Amino acid sequence: MARDANPIEHLIDLMARLPGLGPRSARRAVLHLIRKRAILLAPLAKAMADVAERARECLNCGNVGTSDICPICADEGRANGLLCVVEEVADLWAMERGGTFKGRYHVLGGTLSALDGVGPEDLRIPQLLQRIGAEGVTEVILALNATIDGQTTAHYIADQLEDRGVQLSSLAQGVPIGGELDYLDDGTITAALNARKRL
Amino acid sequence: MARDANPIEHLIDLMARLPGLGPRSARRAVLHLIRKRAILLAPLAKAMADVAERARECLNCGNVGTSDICPICADEGRANGLLCVVEEVADLWAMERGGTFKGRYHVLGGTLSALDGVGPEDLRIPQLLQRIGAEGVTEVILALNATIDGQTTAHYIADQLEDRGVQLSSLAQGVPIGGELDYLDDGTITAALNARKRL
Repeated sequence: MARDANPIEHLIDLMARLPGLGPRSARRAVLHLIRKRAILLAPLAKAMADVAERARECLNCGNVGTSDICPICADEGRANGLLCVVEEVADLWAMERGGTFKGRYHVLGGTLSALDGVGPEDLRIPQLLQRIGAEGVTEVILALNATIDGQTTAHYIADQLEDRGVQLSSLAQGVPIGGELDYLDDGTITAALNARKRL
Repeated sequence: MARDANPIEHLIDLMARLPGLGPRSARRAVLHLIRKRAILLAPLAKAMADVAERARECLNCGNVGTSDICPICADEGRANGLLCVVEEVADLWAMERGGTFKGRYHVLGGTLSALDGVGPEDLRIPQLLQRIGAEGVTEVILALNATIDGQTTAHYIADQLEDRGVQLSSLAQGVPIGGELDYLDDGTITAALNARKRL
């Protein structure tokens, strides 16, 4: 065998465990890395070691960064009473790419799921309730995914916040920008129709 | 911004340069890595550093490994006069996964291409001609891809070897095992028909 128990084979095995890569694409990636050893493989090894050492969760909101309190939570300009609740860090990053939201975030770390035995205590829901008082939050935007679990979680949080005197909202549902009706599912079209806007 | 000029952003940028990953899947991979820091990110950083330091091309055949002469070239049991010529290291690995070829390999490092200005000297063709005499090669299997450039390169090598007294062969073309006729291109069907076997 060309690659028995050697470092290259080991690297391929590890790479194949990344989401979106399988054994075949991991081999392709590793050969590419070896070809670009100086400009890609070595810097990547260093960047990974760096992140492995420094990455941490924000103690306040659950965002991933390199400090105990993330730059968004540390930014006093964003303490404007708006709090956007998302499922995962990836959703927070997606919202930030939008670039229009100027409040703070709260990352739940998943959704409630009776099937998988995920209860409120397994998510960052107690911390959410605590923050609402402590940070003077006036509006909570529930930016959870439009899935069954996401909407179940949104309803649970809405129930918990019912008598806390905060405004609750959720993201609008409808046709995506650039979306073609023919490719949309029926649920989205129904939602867009029900929420139609007068011109 | 949540990730301005920080190590996580830097890692995402590098990951997005891997084949098969784009900015979105790189972000997903990095979040996955951070969640699995101890069992995946740290080992991966170490494995990459290890490969960056130790990987080298076999001086004889061009295979990638961790020694100057790869295990296949070093294996005297494989000095049986059979030499399989492939375009890339990935092709060599694919042949080895097949597990039936017990000769040695020669990795060209690409194909001849007038368009891209790739001539015989840019590939490992001179080394191939040198090996045929030095290693007592009796049969050369041209396992190049069934593309225009691959076949052009195969013809060029066949020309070079015409009076060297070695048997030349190429891989059979036909229907892949498990392949369905309906999904095959016309060229493959024609090739399979022309090379049909009596039962």
